[in-house]
Amino acid sequence: MSQPSAPVQTFRAIDVIRKKRDGGELSRGEIESIVNAYTRGDIPDYQVSAWLMAVVLRGMTRAETAALTDAMLRSGEVLDLSSLAAKKVDKHSTGLPVAQFRHVLDTCGCAMIGQTAEIAPADRKLYALRDVTGTVESPYLICASIMSKKLAEGIDALVLDVKTGSGAFMKNEKDAAFLAELMVETGERMGKQMVALITDMDQPLGCMIGNALEVVEVVDILRGEGPRDLRQLCLELAGWMLHLGGVSSTVAEGKKQSEKLIASGEALDRFRQMVGLQGGDPRAIDDPKKLPQAQRTSTVSSQKSGFLASLQCEQVGTACVILGGGRERKEDAVDPAVGIVLHKKVGDAVSAGEPLATIHYNAETRAARARQLLEQSYVITDSPLREKRPLIHRVIGKPGEKN
Amino acid sequence: MSQPSAPVQTFRAIDVIRKKRDGGELSRGEIESIVNAYTRGDIPDYQVSAWLMAVVLRGMTRAETAALTDAMLRSGEVLDLSSLAAKKVDKHSTGLPVAQFRHVLDTCGCAMIGQTAEIAPADRKLYALRDVTGTVESPYLICASIMSKKLAEGIDALVLDVKTGSGAFMKNEKDAAFLAELMVETGERMGKQMVALITDMDQPLGCMIGNALEVVEVVDILRGEGPRDLRQLCLELAGWMLHLGGVSSTVAEGKKQSEKLIASGEALDRFRQMVGLQGGDPRAIDDPKKLPQAQRTSTVSSQKSGFLASLQCEQVGTACVILGGGRERKEDAVDPAVGIVLHKKVGDAVSAGEPLATIHYNAETRAARARQLLEQSYVITDSPLREKRPLIHRVIGKPGEKN
Repeated sequence: MSQPSAPVQTFRAIDVIRKKRDGGELSRGEIESIVNAYTRGDIPDYQVSAWLMAVVLRGMTRAETAALTDAMLRSGEVLDLSSLAAKKVDKHSTGLPVAQFRHVLDTCGCAMIGQTAEIAPADRKLYALRDVTGTVESPYLICASIMSKKLAEGIDALVLDVKTGSGAFMKNEKDAAFLAELMVETGERMGKQMVALITDMDQPLGCMIGNALEVVEVVDILRGEGPRDLRQLCLELAGWMLHLGGVSSTVAEGKKQSEKLIASGEALDRFRQMVGLQGGDPRAIDDPKKLPQAQRTSTVSSQKSGFLASLQCEQVGTACVILGGGRERKEDAVDPAVGIVLHKKVGDAVSAGEPLATIHYNAETRAARARQLLEQSYVITDSPLREKRPLIHRVIGKPGEKN
Repeated sequence: MSQPSAPVQTFRAIDVIRKKRDGGELSRGEIESIVNAYTRGDIPDYQVSAWLMAVVLRGMTRAETAALTDAMLRSGEVLDLSSLAAKKVDKHSTGLPVAQFRHVLDTCGCAMIGQTAEIAPADRKLYALRDVTGTVESPYLICASIMSKKLAEGIDALVLDVKTGSGAFMKNEKDAAFLAELMVETGERMGKQMVALITDMDQPLGCMIGNALEVVEVVDILRGEGPRDLRQLCLELAGWMLHLGGVSSTVAEGKKQSEKLIASGEALDRFRQMVGLQGGDPRAIDDPKKLPQAQRTSTVSSQKSGFLASLQCEQVGTACVILGGGRERKEDAVDPAVGIVLHKKVGDAVSAGEPLATIHYNAETRAARARQLLEQSYVITDSPLREKRPLIHRVIGKPGEKN
């Protein structure tokens, strides 16, 4: 077939690398070309890693970030959920075949899904390369990685919970807010309703750390019980989701509706239904003994009286990994039974000898190492805290105002 | 054999990449580790290219540049010429087996050598990667690449000719001086006597462009003839070499000695001897017809009268490549006979119809393309030039003062 003559647009990765190295703004076409060529295996790792490092050090404009997100999300399957009448609001994610996801969503209105092989393959490939080339730590690349997966889910609106503090990837509020703004703007450029809550992670959220223990805590929340901070955050996020979904006219009203759904038992019923549809055993919700149980427990007690001034989030997390609750290496198995229950949170008064935490464990040597780390995580001072960090630091993006 | 216990120093490329990415200064050990591991093939291209891009954008300290140069030069054979009594002064380089090099040098006191497989293999491997990852353009990496090869030659002193202007890699004097200072400091850190001349390349040096034509011009210079600019630069460089070699007490005296050696014919005799020892035909020196000759010539004439204001160096070079005098692609053969002879240099008065250049060619179609490019390279103005660019812009490093 003869075509009208046009200049041949030959994509050369080296030109795109040089342009970004010199601080230039890449076009949508250039970004699409590098992402698509890499996903197809047409350009080598060493060119992409040089380009990624140039992105890390030169940054990206909002238009570039959106183009990268778009190219990555369109590298694989993009879910079309338009057959579901209600607005699709996303909060969190964790694994389900697409057809089953659609069925669960259609039946009970909520579902949990993680990255499948079909969704954003460019992201999986790029992330593996970033991981070994020191190019993970770029807000632009983090934004494109998260948002490409989220936007491939066929959603209308997205509520983002961006953590900040010693236990978060973004240690300070400024960095967390920058990433949140990037994600909100990127989603908005693609026609989605977006909001990001910058929330505190300077100490662990809630009181339970560990796989089965966290399920117990979630069920507590759905019963109207559980720790105050976790309950507050859940209601805040649910309020935003109901608001963005068009169910409630304000966030405050959405929170109230959520509280009512908890009080009436309807929220727990819906969770029970979802667990069943997703292949779990719904009886474990009412009988936590059906969840994996650790063989032994051991208490960490306070050495002195005073006030809990800080609780090192990352060390507590590492202690849980040491117990077997997370992976130290890729090939490690996860023990869902083990974990840590916190009895005191930052700001609480404590007496000498009073329990600070309970370790749930299956191996003595692991428990000893975890205890040592836990003991180092607590700072207890004589005088009470002057001020407490807020749970919700900031809300970024005000999609309600635009409707 | 049992050793006192010491902390195991495990080198992780990712740590070195991250450190440079974040603007840190790498230790000598870290730089050695990355260069050695890469040369051995123990770390992949994609990690090294990310590191190179971080180096391009973050730069290097003088200590890092010297450590990189040192690691690269010690990646292969380092010549030991200490058995030769006289000081070894290097200026230029172009291929010879090491044993033959030593013999030629011993016999006639001068020799030409290029990068062999044994010298600085790290440089060859790194350069191939830089070429395809947009990481060529870094003064630190350029310095380490040049200096690692120079310092592997077993020299005592080095005279560097760093070009600046439209035809040079470093377009402006500031960038050229920065690179020159880097190289001088790096050499000095390694105990070598160093000097760098920043010389002009805003128009072609001399009058002949092309492989055989340039040999003719070199012989002209050694006869005390040839173009003034090339003659001046050769004497300047020779003066520095004699001075650094301890033959003359000042550069000015070195220049005078060089002029005398040319006038007496001794310089040309020595060149004739070296050509013979390196396997060339010394008769071509006295009978240029023995050199490859192009079949045809064609004259480019001036369209108007006036003064030659500028002569685009890169375009003249490209015209020579088009004629076949250089490679457009790696697999192209080089035609040593073709080239360009310039009849006017910047500042010269020209009359309409007067020849500006003569094209020496073997293929009509190539000649036509080269002519078009050449014609575009000349700018002729009505009034004479206000000021002429100097041939020697600056001299960096004053090794004489330290002796």
